Order: sequence, then C-alpha cells, then structure tokens
Amino acid sequence: MKIAIALYDKFTALDVIGPYQVLSVLPGAETFFVAAKRGLVPDDSGVVRLEAARSFDEVRDADIVVVGGSPFTHTLIPHDPIIAWLRDLHPRTRWTTSVCTGSLLLAAAGLLRDVEATSHWLMLDLLRELGAKPTLQRVVFGDRIVTAAGVSSGIDMALALVERMYGRDLAETVQLAIEYDPQPPTDAGSPAKARPEIVAGVQKLFEGILAGPA
Amino acid sequence: MKIAIALYDKFTALDVIGPYQVLSVLPGAETFFVAAKRGLVPDDSGVVRLEAARSFDEVRDADIVVVGGSPFTHTLIPHDPIIAWLRDLHPRTRWTTSVCTGSLLLAAAGLLRDVEATSHWLMLDLLRELGAKPTLQRVVFGDRIVTAAGVSSGIDMALALVERMYGRDLAETVQLAIEYDPQPPTDAGSPAKARPEIVAGVQKLFEGILAGPA
Repeated sequence: MKIAIALYDKFTALDVIGPYQVLSVLPGAETFFVAAKRGLVPDDSGVVRLEAARSFDEVRDADIVVVGGSPFTHTLIPHDPIIAWLRDLHPRTRWTTSVCTGSLLLAAAGLLRDVEATSHWLMLDLLRELGAKPTLQRVVFGDRIVTAAGVSSGIDMALALVERMYGRDLAETVQLAIEYDPQPPTDAGSPAKARPEIVAGVQKLFEGILAGPA
Repeated sequence: MKIAIALYDKFTALDVIGPYQVLSVLPGAETFFVAAKRGLVPDDSGVVRLEAARSFDEVRDADIVVVGGSPFTHTLIPHDPIIAWLRDLHPRTRWTTSVCTGSLLLAAAGLLRDVEATSHWLMLDLLRELGAKPTLQRVVFGDRIVTAAGVSSGIDMALALVERMYGRDLAETVQLAIEYDPQPPTDAGSPAKARPEIVAGVQKLFEGILAGPA
C-alpha cells in the first residue's frame, strides 16, 4: 500500500509527522515523502529539514495521500505545482487526506467543491471562499476525502482512517503502541474552549502572516 | 533560549517532533537538532531522514534538552556517545527532558537514580533495572528533569513544561495555535484502558525487538 506524504517549503512538521507515525505501521505500508523536487525541504521555522525521497513527477498514484498545512499555505494558491499534482492524483487514490491548512490545497485543486471539510480554525473563511463547506469538526470524512483541523489533529485523523480501513482492533493497537492517551495540561485546544483573550492572542499572532497574498 | 533536540539512528519521529512543535515557538527559542555527527539521521522505519544541524561535540550547554525514544533505544546502553553527552550536559541545562524510551538514556547516564520517572509502558521494567522508580503517570516532573510516556506524550510533556516555565496563558496560546483538542476515535491509549487482547497484541509485536541486547 503506497502512502504518499506531501512536503512543500515551510510545511508544519507535526502536521505530517502525526499521520506518518500512525500510517507507516499499516500492513504492507510503503510510506514516502514527496515534494516538487527530491531533497531536503525546510519547515515553517527552517529548523526541521526533512528529506523528500520522490518528486511529484515520480508519483502518479497512491493509496493514501496526506497533505499537511503551513501558516503560509494560502500563498501557494493558485499556481504551486502541488495543486496540479493533487488534481491529477486524486482520481487514483483510495483516500486523499489533509491536516490543517492542507485542505486549502485540496480546495484549490477543485476537490472540495460544495463538500463539508475542515482546516485550521483560523482559515475556515478562506476554505469557504475556495468553495468548500467549512465545519468545526475535528475530522471530516467525505467521499474518499478526509480533512482534519489544525496541526495536532493529524493523529486523530490517521487513527480514524485506520479504523475505517482496517477496523477497531488495528486502530486500538496503533493507539496503544504510540501510547496516545492525551492529557493536555490545559483545556484550550479549540476556539470554543479557549478563553476569549487567548483566542484573540492567537489571532493577533497570525494576523500578519494571514494577510499575505492568497 | 537554546533548545537541543537529540537524534540518533532509528529514533521515533513523533517523539521529537511533538515537543519540537510546541517548544520551538517559545520566546527567543533557538531550536536545533543534534546527533553524534551532523547530517541526516534515519528514523526507526528509515522513511524519515531528518537533518542534525550540530554534533554532540558542538553542544556543551542548553536551556532545554529533549531526548526522544526508539524501539531500539535499549541497544544504545551503555556505550553510545549520547549517554556520555547527556551526563556531561545535564548540569548545564535548565530542563533535561525525555519522551518514551528516551528516559532509558537519562537513566543510563545516571540522572534518574532513585527518581520517579516514566517511559513507554512496555519498558518500565528496564527503567527500574536502570535505577529509576517507574510510574505510569504520563508526564513526571523531577528536579530539573521531566520524563514522559510513549511516543505521543511528548506534546503533553512540552505543554506542561511551557506552563511550568512561562505560565498558563502561554501554554494555552500554544495549545490553541496547534489546535490540540485531541479526539482519538478509540479509547485504548494506555495499557490500563486497552482491552487485554490489544495489550497482548502490542506486547507480541515488540517481543522480538525488546529481547535484543540491552
């Protein structure tokens, strides 16, 4: 089973490593990172440099594709090569998935038109502008498409996909192997739960970035 | 603030990327990956190849050090260079931290003698043999040392450390920025919660690996 995890400059590391850690243990998994060109791809802080073993040109089909996000994903729309690659690839995947703002790329590729989908909570308006029907659910299953919320949600998305594809026993086995018994010390993980001043603070932090070209 | 994240051959990717994603946004953070030699380090499946920007020789102090785990960590004991490096570094850190079997390396370096600590649930017996007092808590704070449970626990550990060092507001801000509102689809994330046949299945999966040289 071919699992293609897409990288692009300034990707957010946990967006892709969360699903990678869950999916790469699936039976017969052949997991690889793919980008516009082979080689090292820097993340959003430039500290993580992760190697893409294949280029988009070399990957014309996959069982599962995972597209992570970035604070800068919207700047790839509409001309980055990843968008044409996703549009071309999707008819030959079993599941096309996204984490965080990766869903903006799926939308830009025309895969989310009038479809319920999610993204990082800060980007739901842009997701709507790109033709999707945004929801605040953490993991949203559509027709061969799964979108997930911000950054850390990729772990939940991947486990839900394992359950859907292979059943509860394997999902629980992977969950126990990675000891995924989350115990965040505070309870501010969504805009509905966080205090208003915390929500406003995060909005302010990302204001400059999100006002960039889309 | 210098944040050193240690890599070694066959590291588990999520162990280090979880804390990285949380800690790298701290005020003034200078985060870097460090290994025995500079260059690409392969993870436990060989699919992730992550670049270490510095070598152990180049890092003689740090504010925070993070040591992740691997299914093969025990085979590094007692002679791998990371152990002497940790022993030497620890007196000059503010916090020495581990995720998963990274705590075995802290113990091998003599940092956990008679200290409450945790590890991946499969490795608590070995942690005891190495002189620590194992507990099943997810995140254990000691004197300038924090240990965390298996793989995914590094996110909780890092957020708890942010709260300890900078207070609740910043911990919540980071939690909301990475939308860490975990919703695993099943409830089998610890040996206490998983069904006995799932626990036995994971034990069996790792049997061969864990019987290796320690």
